[in-house]
Formats: sequence, structure tokens, C-alpha cells
Amino acid sequence: MPDYTLYYWPIPFRGHIIRYVLAQAGANWDEPGADALMALKSAPPADQPYPFMAPPLLHDRGADRWLGQMPAIVMYLGRKHGLTGDPDTALRLVCDASDILLEITRHHGEQMWVRAAWDEFSGARLPRWMQLHEALAAGGRFDADTPGLAELTLAALWHTMVDRLPGLRALLSTHAPTVEALADRVAALPRIAEMLVRWDQPDAGYCGGQIEASLRAMLADPD
Amino acid sequence: MPDYTLYYWPIPFRGHIIRYVLAQAGANWDEPGADALMALKSAPPADQPYPFMAPPLLHDRGADRWLGQMPAIVMYLGRKHGLTGDPDTALRLVCDASDILLEITRHHGEQMWVRAAWDEFSGARLPRWMQLHEALAAGGRFDADTPGLAELTLAALWHTMVDRLPGLRALLSTHAPTVEALADRVAALPRIAEMLVRWDQPDAGYCGGQIEASLRAMLADPD
Repeated sequence: MPDYTLYYWPIPFRGHIIRYVLAQAGANWDEPGADALMALKSAPPADQPYPFMAPPLLHDRGADRWLGQMPAIVMYLGRKHGLTGDPDTALRLVCDASDILLEITRHHGEQMWVRAAWDEFSGARLPRWMQLHEALAAGGRFDADTPGLAELTLAALWHTMVDRLPGLRALLSTHAPTVEALADRVAALPRIAEMLVRWDQPDAGYCGGQIEASLRAMLADPD
Repeated sequence: MPDYTLYYWPIPFRGHIIRYVLAQAGANWDEPGADALMALKSAPPADQPYPFMAPPLLHDRGADRWLGQMPAIVMYLGRKHGLTGDPDTALRLVCDASDILLEITRHHGEQMWVRAAWDEFSGARLPRWMQLHEALAAGGRFDADTPGLAELTLAALWHTMVDRLPGLRALLSTHAPTVEALADRVAALPRIAEMLVRWDQPDAGYCGGQIEASLRAMLADPD
């Protein structure tokens, strides 16, 4: 029996933040398919094993404990596996990551990317997020070799983004070189690198759906 | 000198979740005006006292510690003032509240409410959120008389919403009567009630801006 069951879509996106933590913790987990997730998600709240709106959802099988909301899952795992580090910095970064992933998908595809909106986002808001994390990293508080939640979150956010959307790497190099180096090093740690190979699948993409197509269209044609 | 300085807009919305916790903790705090907040928010990241994207921002003056992201602020205060309760349930609810406030403002006014979108939200997604919290409350795990972060968050979310937007109370009564009663009781606790009177100001409204006008237009004309 695996230690955990993670209910999430078969995409990197938000899921990779949890997968990075699980992998670094040396935990093993399974991920049921989208059908199992949809059945849980659409059940009446009183019939759900744990009332939740949207994935990710984590089942700690040993403790028979259910957890919802990505930041709550990550903080739980950090506590349980001794990876928390400074809890306030960790949680702040997890929440930043959540915001950034929401913004880069225009709130899970509520609107599609069009040129003017993308130019504004990639020219101002996204670089600002990068600069903010660079300013946090400039204090030397992060350590790629013994990563806690903060480093794992930064790597799962930024490495995944520029790995899956290579057109954004130059922006990260320009605005957050320290963060870029940190993210690359964490992603190359043995447990993380092994997980990335094991987990990967053809067409896993980045965030999935029409919004990913819309995002790739912006990057494919920079004018 | 106050214990804390809270940088936030002069509206209830997200700020009330932090204000409820500060009030119940017996802490005192000041809130500089929007100009002071804008000056901090728009500074280059390296010049900010703490690099952050958007309010709320909290300065713990005694510890000279800065905190960003509402969930991180709330969890910090809970830990410091012995109000955390079950940290996983607390954080999950804080994240839910954050999502709900984002959704009810169409992501801070990125789009305005129009009839079809509002009917869908108020007819399905918002009731679902209410039912989810009702299902959590049905386990009897919440206690309005000795509130921790979970109860304070539920009250700051739902009481503030139906207090400021009375047209939504019937929906809450229908889908989450236990949560409604809990929220009303927490909001009436001496420290919270005193804070609400002291903090309130003419035209504080709910979430402010054009999106509040758009929301009120939907509620004023239910057809």
C-alpha cells in the first residue's frame, strides 16, 4: 500500500509542488486517474470522504487523513516529514506559487490569452513576481542542497514553468538568476530528478486544456 | 506603539479575516492609509521592507517581522497567540476563503458581473462552497464560544459577506444553516463585536471598486 494517494489531474502545474515534497520526503504515492477524481469531486459534499471543491486532494493512507487545498497539503507534509523550515516563508511562497499559477492560466482558463493581455502580464506582472522571489533569495536564506518547503516550492514553480515553457526561461534568467539557479539545482537532486523521469508522460504538458494551447500560441509567436 | 501594523485597503473583504484574528487575540494594531500602502507596494522589490506583491501585509512591530500573503499572516498570528487549533483544517478554510473572495469579485474585478455569469455563480458554485463548509461543520468540530482560526475564518468570510450583502443571507441559510449560526455567534463575541464597531466607517462597503458596484447591481435586480 502506498503511503499516500494524490488526486490531481495528470499534469505538472499545481501537482508538481506536492510531488516535489513527496519525492524529497522519500514517500511513495499513487495517483488514480481523472475518472476517480471526477467521481469524488462531483459527489454531494455529505457523500465525499472529505468535503472539497477542487483538486489537489491528498489521502494520507496510514493516518487515514484527508487534506484539501494545495497549501494545506504542503504544510501538512512538511510538518510530517521534517521539511517545513521557516513556516511563514514556506507558506508565503506556496501562496505566491498558487497566485502565479492562477495568473498564468488566467484563472484556470476563465479567459484565454490574447496578445495585449499576455504582453502586459509577461512584461510587467510576471517579471515582478520573479523579482520579488529574487529579492527574497538575495538574503541567502535558501539552500538547494538541503531543500525544505521554500526551496521545493520555488523549484516546482519556476523550474516546471521554464522546463515546460522554454520560451519563458530568458525572462527568468533576466529577472531572477539566483532563483533560476536554485530551481535548476533542486530539480536535479537525485530524488526529484528520479521522480520527474518516473512521473513524466507523453503529452503531460504544463497546465493542460485550451488555456495551455492559448499560452503556447503566445510564446510561439512573440509578435 | 501598537503590536502590529496591518497594511490593507480600507475595506472588510480579505482584511476582516486578519482583523478577526487580531481582535480575538486581544492584539492592538494600526492601519496606515491607502497612500502608505501604495508607496510600499509600488517600490522596487529590493527597496521594500519585505518583498511582496499585494496586500495584506503585516508588520509585527515587537518582533520586527514582516509577513505577506493572507494565509501566512493568519497562520503566524494563530501560532503566536495560541489560536491555531487543528492547523490543517484552519489552513484549508483560510485557503477556501481566499478562493471564495477571489471568485465573488471575479478575480479582483478582472471581469465585471453580468447576469448569466452571476446566475451561474450564485446558483451553483457559491451554494456548493456553502454546502462544503456545512458538511465540515456537521462533524461538530467547530465551537463558536472558544474560536480558533477555523471558526474565526468562517465567521470573517460568511458573516462579513451576508452582513455587507444582505441579499445573500437567504442563500447561506438554505445551504449552510450551521455555518450561518456559527458565523453570527462568532461575530457577536465581545472582542469581535467591539472591533467591528470600532473599525467600521461610512462607505467601507464590502470589496470596493467597480466590482462591488457590479455585485450590488446583480443583487438589487434579481431578475
